[in-house]
Amino acid sequence: MKDLSAALEIDTALARRILTGFLRSETKRAGFSRGVVGVSGGIDSALTCFLAAEALGPKNVLAVRIPHAGSSPDSFDDAAEVIRLCGVRQVSFPITDAAAPLLASIPASDRVRRGNILARLRMIVLYDQSAAFEGLVLGTGNKTEILLGYTTLFGDSACALNPLGDLYKTQVRQLAAAVGLPAPILAKPPSADLWPGQTDEGELGVTFAEVDRLLFLLVDERQSAEACIEAGFKRSMVRKIVARIRRNQFKRMPPVVAKLSQRTVGYDFLYLRDEGT
Amino acid sequence: MKDLSAALEIDTALARRILTGFLRSETKRAGFSRGVVGVSGGIDSALTCFLAAEALGPKNVLAVRIPHAGSSPDSFDDAAEVIRLCGVRQVSFPITDAAAPLLASIPASDRVRRGNILARLRMIVLYDQSAAFEGLVLGTGNKTEILLGYTTLFGDSACALNPLGDLYKTQVRQLAAAVGLPAPILAKPPSADLWPGQTDEGELGVTFAEVDRLLFLLVDERQSAEACIEAGFKRSMVRKIVARIRRNQFKRMPPVVAKLSQRTVGYDFLYLRDEGT
Repeated sequence: MKDLSAALEIDTALARRILTGFLRSETKRAGFSRGVVGVSGGIDSALTCFLAAEALGPKNVLAVRIPHAGSSPDSFDDAAEVIRLCGVRQVSFPITDAAAPLLASIPASDRVRRGNILARLRMIVLYDQSAAFEGLVLGTGNKTEILLGYTTLFGDSACALNPLGDLYKTQVRQLAAAVGLPAPILAKPPSADLWPGQTDEGELGVTFAEVDRLLFLLVDERQSAEACIEAGFKRSMVRKIVARIRRNQFKRMPPVVAKLSQRTVGYDFLYLRDEGT
Repeated sequence: MKDLSAALEIDTALARRILTGFLRSETKRAGFSRGVVGVSGGIDSALTCFLAAEALGPKNVLAVRIPHAGSSPDSFDDAAEVIRLCGVRQVSFPITDAAAPLLASIPASDRVRRGNILARLRMIVLYDQSAAFEGLVLGTGNKTEILLGYTTLFGDSACALNPLGDLYKTQVRQLAAAVGLPAPILAKPPSADLWPGQTDEGELGVTFAEVDRLLFLLVDERQSAEACIEAGFKRSMVRKIVARIRRNQFKRMPPVVAKLSQRTVGYDFLYLRDEGT
């Protein structure tokens, strides 16, 4: 197989400068000076928290830990360590009680529905905390997750600004290592921690190292599925990934509005965000 | 003032045909045959439920009532009447218990934060019910609300398809009357029912009849603020409405992603929704 690892290597110093600049300028442009991050103990939220602290100043960042009785105590402790390192403000808001009546009628076997409830409750807490703190919610989703649709709509994907959305998971790892995040955070298997033993790679059925190379070929290099198969990727995997990207396009766009007038929101009515327009 | 009422008049028979066609074709295109609507007792959700029943067949529509201890019992009864009339399936899921721990630390005076919690919990219930029913969530937001940003992000604005999103509130009233929705539903003052006595017009500080005429000039006719003032609208109101439209643009677009690569989701990566692309 063609070696794509080099293609996925990023200039971490440059990425760090661009992303802190992005957080600073976009926060200001929206009329804010503060940011709020849900810190889970995982690498994506750790890096987001670190970049936010560097961009906005630690006192202008609120880290929110949102544990559930079913989530791992280790994650909660890892999150504490991230918060300590970044020197940001923090609050912890458990969702076990709020979740109970929502989970009561869902079979234990239906992990996706149960996981979506928790991810969306976390969104509620994060947005409510952002209102109290007067900060923007900073998302933690990466390009791999977004392309695969490996997110809960209106849950973990909900945010105002998304600093890591153009970095593949393997690139998040490079940047996280470069900025000096702790080794245990870097090394642990990625997990949404929505049920015991869940790992992202187990659920997706492919390693991030492999799927990122495929996504790079498909998306960044605009190669066809056939070309990816010729480059050495398994046909079954290529088909599965292409289908996932297509199937989850709805998660990457606003709701579909029925067009009736000359100027419809989302079609012909597309104000820019700047005041000057 | 120039008479704009005529300009806001719609051909209700045509709108009904277009919107039922939209619901049928877009539901099918997404790979579904069913729809889910949160029915509140208000005119927008009543009309959405009616159109969905006509488009998909009543058995393929699930109406979800999501009462909270603080919401009006009259609304709950009005919703029941709508459901009966449309002949759709129904489920009722109270959110009082789930809301309690989330509301506990929010001052009673902070109605917006409290209202957002309830609107987002309703989204959670609606999406969870849609997963169980295997239907698409049909939104009930109208063009007036969307332009003014008079919605809770990831709350009542969250949906897969938005049939009424290109109809101003006054146009929703025309269509609702034309399809024969009950007089009490048509006549009652619009309210999000998030606290006792709340009315949309009271909160917005303007009647829908007036703001719709202004929005039509600004958006559909692409008139400048100055031209609207010359046409007879109060300067203070025009300024307030223009500011609202701009300030709430973030609610009408996906999160802002930091651009790092040649092909970024939301900028250069914009797959169409069809399989054929």
